[in-house]
Amino acid sequence: MDRNNKNADRWLVSLITDTPREGFELAIQLSQMGVKYTQPSEAIRKRLRPRYAYNADSLIAASQVIAINYQTVAAANDYWL
Amino acid sequence: MDRNNKNADRWLVSLITDTPREGFELAIQLSQMGVKYTQPSEAIRKRLRPRYAYNADSLIAASQVIAINYQTVAAANDYWL
Amino acid sequence: MDRNNKNADRWLVSLITDTPREGFELAIQLSQMGVKYTQPSEAIRKRLRPRYAYNADSLIAASQVIAINYQTVAAANDYWL
Amino acid sequence: MDRNNKNADRWLVSLITDTPREGFELAIQLSQMGVKYTQPSEAIRKRLRPRYAYNADSLIAASQVIAINYQTVAAANDYWL
Amino acid sequence: MDRNNKNADRWLVSLITDTPREGFELAIQLSQMGVKYTQPSEAIRKRLRPRYAYNADSLIAASQVIAINYQTVAAANDYWL
Amino acid sequence: MDRNNKNADRWLVSLITDTPREGFELAIQLSQMGVKYTQPSEAIRKRLRPRYAYNADSLIAASQVIAINYQTVAAANDYWL
Repeated sequence: MDRNNKNADRWLVSLITDTPREGFELAIQLSQMGVKYTQPSEAIRKRLRPRYAYNADSLIAASQVIAINYQTVAAANDYWL
Repeated sequence: MDRNNKNADRWLVSLITDTPREGFELAIQLSQMGVKYTQPSEAIRKRLRPRYAYNADSLIAASQVIAINYQTVAAANDYWL
Repeated sequence: MDRNNKNADRWLVSLITDTPREGFELAIQLSQMGVKYTQPSEAIRKRLRPRYAYNADSLIAASQVIAINYQTVAAANDYWL
Repeated sequence: MDRNNKNADRWLVSLITDTPREGFELAIQLSQMGVKYTQPSEAIRKRLRPRYAYNADSLIAASQVIAINYQTVAAANDYWL
Repeated sequence: MDRNNKNADRWLVSLITDTPREGFELAIQLSQMGVKYTQPSEAIRKRLRPRYAYNADSLIAASQVIAINYQTVAAANDYWL
Repeated sequence: MDRNNKNADRWLVSLITDTPREGFELAIQLSQMGVKYTQPSEAIRKRLRPRYAYNADSLIAASQVIAINYQTVAAANDYWL
């Protein structure tokens, strides 16, 4: 677990969100946590940031992880119907 | 959040669309927002555009993200039956 | 939207098809539209064609996008049962 | 459509198979058809074969497309329960 | 079909397993069979093994195929509830 | 099976977890087990670690495998509703 993330203990209490947009933001958070669990050092993750935030293919790949997590969040919320 | 996107506050109010085609356009928007959240600077995203819009593999990868998001939108709309 | 595609206005009226095979062809069309929305210029897409049609990994990637879209179309048609 | 494939007109009449194994073989066929629709020339596909059949990453990618299509076929058959 | 695999005729009789762990092992087997169908020669597959078993990105890709197949197996077993 | 993993015999007894967060940790474990089954040597896996833990694209790919496994775990737990 990322020891630098002070919210770590409180994160992911529920997959339920009020709106589709908050659900999308949860999907982003899930995608980031997948990275954080694999590379817990915030310092290293910050150093790697230019490697993906300025690379078109990395941005598309990041968007894909978000899309997969959004499928989960949207299903959990019965698509906010 | 992309501060340059003036529609940011109003986006993704619902996953429901009138037609399969509007749903596809929402899937494209979701795919773009995944990129925007990761790289909020519109200037940088514009600079990266030639890196994927003129690269066959990047275009296929972009189409894949859209396909994943379209699964979510289509399920939300019960496939417009 | 691809202004060169004269069928653009009529495409994707429904996800329902008569047969599994027509559904597969719709999945191919969805995959191509994902590319077209990202690179609207038909001239550029034609120029990029050799980059994927003669590349084994690109063909596998294209087949993967079709497979993802086919999941959507097949579910919409209740697997043509 | 692949004009060299004499079975083309009869393929994909149904997603239903007798056994999980025949379903897996249908998933392989679907994956190959995704490639065939993108590169219809059998001669070119044969020439590309060494590029993926002798490349570990391409084989993993091919196995992934089969896995995605197998999800569709398995769902269509209600997992052969 | 892999002629070297003496169990080939008996494999994949059912997607049902007794436990989540046996289901995971079936998902691994499905992933390997996707490779075997594409490259039937056991000799060539063995030669390629160092190309993925000692490559971090290939191992992640292999784990992804297993994850996709595990979705299918888990759904078939109603998640072993 | 990883002979170095002393918990191997007891892992994956169930997909059910108490909370969404424990489910996420199970998804991480599933992703790691996919790697371990493919490369059972802990020594080699440790040597490969710098190849992905310090590589932005590998971290995104790892996060994607976690996301796919999390879909399975979340569905098994009916999204912890």
